[in-house]
Amino acid sequence: MSSPSAAESFPAHTSAASQIFTTVLSQGPLTRSEVARRAGLSAAAVTKAVRPLIEAGYLVEDVDEDARPALGRPANLVRVDGGRALFIGVKVTGDKIIGVLTDLCCRILVARYVPLAARDPKAVLGSAAELVRELLIEADGLGVRVAGLGMAVSGDVDRAEGVVRYSPFLEWRDVPLAELAAMTTGLPVTVDNDVRALTVAEQWFGAGVGLSGFALVTVGAGIGCGLVVHGKVVAGAHGVAGEIGHVAVDPAGPRCHCGNRGCVEAIASDDAIVRQVRAATGVQVADAVEAAGLAHDGVAGAREVYARAGDAIGRGIATVANLLGPERVVISGEGLAAYDLFADHIRDAFATAAFGSAARCDVQTRPLPFDEWARGAAATAIQSFIRSDANQHLRGAALTQPA
Amino acid sequence: MSSPSAAESFPAHTSAASQIFTTVLSQGPLTRSEVARRAGLSAAAVTKAVRPLIEAGYLVEDVDEDARPALGRPANLVRVDGGRALFIGVKVTGDKIIGVLTDLCCRILVARYVPLAARDPKAVLGSAAELVRELLIEADGLGVRVAGLGMAVSGDVDRAEGVVRYSPFLEWRDVPLAELAAMTTGLPVTVDNDVRALTVAEQWFGAGVGLSGFALVTVGAGIGCGLVVHGKVVAGAHGVAGEIGHVAVDPAGPRCHCGNRGCVEAIASDDAIVRQVRAATGVQVADAVEAAGLAHDGVAGAREVYARAGDAIGRGIATVANLLGPERVVISGEGLAAYDLFADHIRDAFATAAFGSAARCDVQTRPLPFDEWARGAAATAIQSFIRSDANQHLRGAALTQPA
Repeated sequence: MSSPSAAESFPAHTSAASQIFTTVLSQGPLTRSEVARRAGLSAAAVTKAVRPLIEAGYLVEDVDEDARPALGRPANLVRVDGGRALFIGVKVTGDKIIGVLTDLCCRILVARYVPLAARDPKAVLGSAAELVRELLIEADGLGVRVAGLGMAVSGDVDRAEGVVRYSPFLEWRDVPLAELAAMTTGLPVTVDNDVRALTVAEQWFGAGVGLSGFALVTVGAGIGCGLVVHGKVVAGAHGVAGEIGHVAVDPAGPRCHCGNRGCVEAIASDDAIVRQVRAATGVQVADAVEAAGLAHDGVAGAREVYARAGDAIGRGIATVANLLGPERVVISGEGLAAYDLFADHIRDAFATAAFGSAARCDVQTRPLPFDEWARGAAATAIQSFIRSDANQHLRGAALTQPA
Repeated sequence: MSSPSAAESFPAHTSAASQIFTTVLSQGPLTRSEVARRAGLSAAAVTKAVRPLIEAGYLVEDVDEDARPALGRPANLVRVDGGRALFIGVKVTGDKIIGVLTDLCCRILVARYVPLAARDPKAVLGSAAELVRELLIEADGLGVRVAGLGMAVSGDVDRAEGVVRYSPFLEWRDVPLAELAAMTTGLPVTVDNDVRALTVAEQWFGAGVGLSGFALVTVGAGIGCGLVVHGKVVAGAHGVAGEIGHVAVDPAGPRCHCGNRGCVEAIASDDAIVRQVRAATGVQVADAVEAAGLAHDGVAGAREVYARAGDAIGRGIATVANLLGPERVVISGEGLAAYDLFADHIRDAFATAAFGSAARCDVQTRPLPFDEWARGAAATAIQSFIRSDANQHLRGAALTQPA
């Protein structure tokens, strides 16, 4: 943090230093030589970056008791001191806000929920501020300062500017959320797209650890995708990236809210499935749970809707694989509850549409409940804290946070 | 080069040093502080990397006469000494091989063509070796050693292994081209997909200079795409990436050679256009030039084929933009000859299918003749030469190159 109001500056002033810290955070404890190897940097660069981080208490170096050699100097392991700083992550859903307090290692210490009465920015900010206050009290009890707040929202989010450009789900346009939340909470705030935020957590601590290329596809109210290419989450030059939901797989398909036809989201999102199951069966199912219930009961029309949805998702994933060749694709989201209904179709469509050796990509599923999404938001706050090119907003902090 | 037979080792042993050299190569002459800023590294890292490169003659530092201040020390500019090493790039097309001799700055010094009698690996290797011999004689005349050979082939190419896994166009499967060419020519060889190779040259010296995210779409015999994400060309975990030609835009569309229906390539490649124009007009056009002739003459059926092709290309580009959010997309390839026939359709389809601010991506066209593709192959050889994680094959060199 470079703001004069910030209690202290994180002592990693180059991208190499941030990268070294991130490697230890995600893959540690590690020996210094292993950090150098994995970060692709020289031993000298590691030594230079590690010293001030140890002095400031962000890293600690312990003797590796398991690997103590019979002769010679024991290998030391470098790890992050998780208790050195705390972070808050907030994920906004349609009917509630989930907040987590995490340590610097992004371990969840406390998780809280508040219901959401309305979806306008004022209501969401009010509820989020209430949740943050509760979590700050918890942090006070631990005697450790909260160094940042991450907020994850669905839609087109410009992290660099801290602005939610367009969230169809919340019906927001051009909301300067980072600035507003910084003023309300007094914390440095990072705002990001919710799937991208979850992807950061997965890359650091989940199914993407150590992978250079990786995709996280979320299936549920929307169809989202976080992409890691060359070891970094893709943000897009203008804030849009990973829009697998708007890969058009059928020009004769159903109309999508984006204006096109046959987008993956128009065929496979919860709403699309409910609509199509109603049309196919004549049963006025209330939601995706009821729609899946009909399909599980073996109602043919409902099963076909899921088959078509699986086909669309599989083709969307194949498009990602054909363009980027990731090592792994992880499918997650609330839609996993009905996964048995479309798993075969996803796999078949992927295998058919993947080009050449792109089909060798490892496609797997992994349940990630909403706490994990809030943790993803905390991960973006940690990312801003440790990165020299951080995209976070400090205006509010400059006004209100005690130095 | 780490081979004992290599005449000397390029003195950039860390990824930071390679990155610094690449920044000067692509964007120089630059002051040291500007190199640091653009490479995102510290001034100390630049100093450390630059010293041995200057000592070995790869970089030179001159006083910037244009910016000599009235008082104080003048600013020095660092640039690459292009004459320090030479490279050969070879591009294989259906009926000829194009070879270029370049300097270290990838400037073309000599360009040569040899006709190709057959497309089997032996015939291609024989013709390529003949071309390389001619270019080596030219290099001898200049008194500078050739430090590497780059070969660019269409299809699924595993650069790390030096193997052409599958080239539908050449009808090759699992050809260890790098090893074979290294044995034949005695040079260190880098083999890459031709569109990816062209993308390296565009990123360093063309429309992609200084851009973090960039796509090059080539339209012609095939529909290809090179992707730059986070400043690096995407290779794919298993060698496949950028396969925009196999983005399926219409499940009811024509059958593609890959087995699927409605791939962009099945609608918009030269062959696909010829086939569709024949079917639509009944005229047995011989090739894409004749097909375009009919469309230029205003024959309705032919014009519609181009309109459909433009629509497919535009939707393919929108898919790239929705997933990756590049700053710029450049359309090139032999197909540009007929660009007026589908330009409007590409633009309209892109604008319609791009999601949110992904539509702000700058889409432009740029003619790149085959010499430029061969130059791309030379650029991959330069890349291997200067990169610590080079993917090149030295077996042949170890056998035959004089030390």
